[in-house]
Amino acid sequence: MINKLAINNMDCALMAAKEAMQLGEVPVGAAIINYLDGSIVSFSGNRVEADSDPTAHAEILAIRKAAGILNTPRLNMCDIYVTLEPCAMCAKAISLARLRRLYFGAEDPKGGAIYNGPKIFSHSGCNHYPEIYSGISEIISSRLLRDFFKLRR
Amino acid sequence: MINKLAINNMDCALMAAKEAMQLGEVPVGAAIINYLDGSIVSFSGNRVEADSDPTAHAEILAIRKAAGILNTPRLNMCDIYVTLEPCAMCAKAISLARLRRLYFGAEDPKGGAIYNGPKIFSHSGCNHYPEIYSGISEIISSRLLRDFFKLRR
Repeated sequence: MINKLAINNMDCALMAAKEAMQLGEVPVGAAIINYLDGSIVSFSGNRVEADSDPTAHAEILAIRKAAGILNTPRLNMCDIYVTLEPCAMCAKAISLARLRRLYFGAEDPKGGAIYNGPKIFSHSGCNHYPEIYSGISEIISSRLLRDFFKLRR
Repeated sequence: MINKLAINNMDCALMAAKEAMQLGEVPVGAAIINYLDGSIVSFSGNRVEADSDPTAHAEILAIRKAAGILNTPRLNMCDIYVTLEPCAMCAKAISLARLRRLYFGAEDPKGGAIYNGPKIFSHSGCNHYPEIYSGISEIISSRLLRDFFKLRR
């Protein structure tokens, strides 16, 4: 399933991550795709500092935007692409939004919550969990983050 | 530390939960208090259906509102009061917002993520975790939820 289409969609998330970097935000981006017609519903980069909002991770903003556009809190006709393994807040939001698939780039051994830490989708209390495809464009995603934190030191 | 002040602050969260119920939302409420002067910074009930937003849990909305009012994503001068044990999304948001203390009402064995399920604050990747005080006004909080789900059946 990790085909050319997935890489194209991840390019949209990567573009949002690069925009975040230009704003001085941690360069993570997300895109939400309607898998029925392949259209991009929404995309966003991190905006924590820009919006003075600790919840303004790329995934949360993209989910909120998509839900607003589609006028429903249930995005079961959509997939999400994220450049980095989501944290616990975003993983649970993906579950609550009923997204069908999660495609992500680099793993995050410290803050990630899919394969790492609290492993949000592995608990019985999690009513919905997406299919997961990882490692998509992970080298580009990781390099962006490494460059960002190198500049900050 | 579970004193009269804590119960008064929880009353604000309970009021927001009751408002949520009147909107047909799951009756959970949250309030954010500046512990330096005891003022209520923000409060909210769930608004998932009203806002078509799967992330619109009471805690997320109260945190976003408080961060907007105080113009910072770091709410380290604040405590949060929630009528129900937060889910993983909200627990991680509380950590990201650097809230000092979490006071909550009833435990949620199914969806809760503090003492239950993914136990968000117990992982080494969690950079900040609040002091936790549970069981405040828990009988009223539980009764609200029970009444809500009874009506729905």
